[in-house]
Amino acid sequence: MPDMDFKVITMGHGSGGKLTNDLLDRGVFNLFDSEILQKRHDGAVFNLEGNIAFTTDSFVINPVFFPGGNIGELAVNGTVNDIAMCGAIPKYISLSLIIEEGLLVEDLWEILAAVKIAAENVNVQIVTGDTKVVEKGKGDKIFINTTGIGIMHSRADIDMSRISADDAVIVSGPIANHGMAIMSVREGLTFESDILSDTRPLNEMVISLIDRFGEDIKLLRDPTRGGVATVLNEIAHSCKVGIELQENVFPIQKQVKAACEMLGIDPLYVANEGIFLAIVNKTVASEVIDILKSFEFGQSSVIIGSIQKDFPRKVFVKSKIGGRRVVGMLAGEQLPRIC
Amino acid sequence: MPDMDFKVITMGHGSGGKLTNDLLDRGVFNLFDSEILQKRHDGAVFNLEGNIAFTTDSFVINPVFFPGGNIGELAVNGTVNDIAMCGAIPKYISLSLIIEEGLLVEDLWEILAAVKIAAENVNVQIVTGDTKVVEKGKGDKIFINTTGIGIMHSRADIDMSRISADDAVIVSGPIANHGMAIMSVREGLTFESDILSDTRPLNEMVISLIDRFGEDIKLLRDPTRGGVATVLNEIAHSCKVGIELQENVFPIQKQVKAACEMLGIDPLYVANEGIFLAIVNKTVASEVIDILKSFEFGQSSVIIGSIQKDFPRKVFVKSKIGGRRVVGMLAGEQLPRIC
Repeated sequence: MPDMDFKVITMGHGSGGKLTNDLLDRGVFNLFDSEILQKRHDGAVFNLEGNIAFTTDSFVINPVFFPGGNIGELAVNGTVNDIAMCGAIPKYISLSLIIEEGLLVEDLWEILAAVKIAAENVNVQIVTGDTKVVEKGKGDKIFINTTGIGIMHSRADIDMSRISADDAVIVSGPIANHGMAIMSVREGLTFESDILSDTRPLNEMVISLIDRFGEDIKLLRDPTRGGVATVLNEIAHSCKVGIELQENVFPIQKQVKAACEMLGIDPLYVANEGIFLAIVNKTVASEVIDILKSFEFGQSSVIIGSIQKDFPRKVFVKSKIGGRRVVGMLAGEQLPRIC
Repeated sequence: MPDMDFKVITMGHGSGGKLTNDLLDRGVFNLFDSEILQKRHDGAVFNLEGNIAFTTDSFVINPVFFPGGNIGELAVNGTVNDIAMCGAIPKYISLSLIIEEGLLVEDLWEILAAVKIAAENVNVQIVTGDTKVVEKGKGDKIFINTTGIGIMHSRADIDMSRISADDAVIVSGPIANHGMAIMSVREGLTFESDILSDTRPLNEMVISLIDRFGEDIKLLRDPTRGGVATVLNEIAHSCKVGIELQENVFPIQKQVKAACEMLGIDPLYVANEGIFLAIVNKTVASEVIDILKSFEFGQSSVIIGSIQKDFPRKVFVKSKIGGRRVVGMLAGEQLPRIC
């Protein structure tokens, strides 16, 4: 932590004046040692060639420190993953902070250190930023916006309109960890083993798939808010297809399943931060699983279902005795401020 | 305003589920009719070639509706101007909303309509976005992050390190309007004529200057938070130069001057949203003023001072009888949440 004269953030740190400059000079600019950032202009300038992906996310998670991570790494990983889901390689990120007056500088520092590590981890540069401060009771500790730019993979052809009947639907890892980690903290629940958020970057796994399978990877989505069920419903609606899921195939950790059962929550609606759904040509589906399993966090990847011409706009689970149960979109709020 | 079943924003609108989709489908996606946005992926994909400028800003202004504008157009103009200050032509923008539960849908709509008009006005496309909702008392109506991408003007060479002695310092228009408009509302002051925020895009004026003068335009900055004095101090510190200002040359509207005097505020520290400072080669300074005066909002542009080798890191006003008064950086907070 840098040597600062102050222990809490005050309104003056958002004034744009001397205190803002102190915070930036002695803190932020030292931490994020990027040549582009050091220019200290109103924006970053750099060269880009080709097709790019551009994505934004504001993070308002409560609590800002949670089992398995904090809002800082979540904000970087979340935007890195949105870029990856476009079939792009993340390169540059902006970082905009809305801090509530009274935030402890040591908490801010822990969060920014996590931002730095998460960015370095995926070789992304933080090139521009902004800091605002709001009065106590007009924010909640810290909100972070990250907006990212990635370079499209030359073999990527990720497009919802390319989905067709018989494509396989794959999930890259166990579901419901992030949401249940947050809920456990908020509800004060403890289990035999801790439930940790799965916040992590997905870019390496995704790039490996596109390297190998190119256009056979038709759609990638990370099922964050609303969970797997909501994202699949969005796809089914937009593409006017049916999505048939197999019964009892979703990977889920034992303690997460237990927590869901205890709280009466369907894990299909619980937020994730470190898995993705892939819709791929069925001819490559089992090879996709082979590649995913070569990654630490792809060990439990599995084919969960397939695209169907019948029952357009519906997601349904087919039971072993042939019945169909429709899985709708998340209605109302399940767990506010999960990301 | 679109036909919605709800009159206020609830936590469910940030769930990522059905309510979020309703708000987006029937509201946001209809309003911002962009082909890229309609893809509804996690990010926008488009082609870029060359040097780009990338800039981010979160807007937390209070009140969100103010004389002369609202937070929506402020958020677009603010990011457009930061791009322009890099010497770039604004092209793409992301829009991320953090809404406080209970915001009236009609207020949201008025704000988003202002976003749309401001973006169309400068031919910028809103290509990706995000919506979060926080509980009542954990935000303040609405915070907006805009992050923008612009294409560098081929003749731009905006770089602080290019500033040298004798360069002229120019201001493009009257100072202190935005800050005093907000302060007047908050303090409940009324004047003979209204004080309006100067929120407006500056890209056209800037591009005209670069078209004509190229590298003779050495630095551009919009003096928002902290005002003209703070930005000039940042420049003086970073470039290790002195900046000498002439006495009584700053353009200021009569009612703004009166308000500043009444409240005992130095207009040099008051925030602006629709003017810029340019540091230019002295050989082109008077021609720069000629060009600026050909624009509606450049009528009162003027040379306010010059870069000096003496007194490095100091900004000072030289009086007519030869005395020097140092103008420091804004200390503490003058007016919180001005943008």
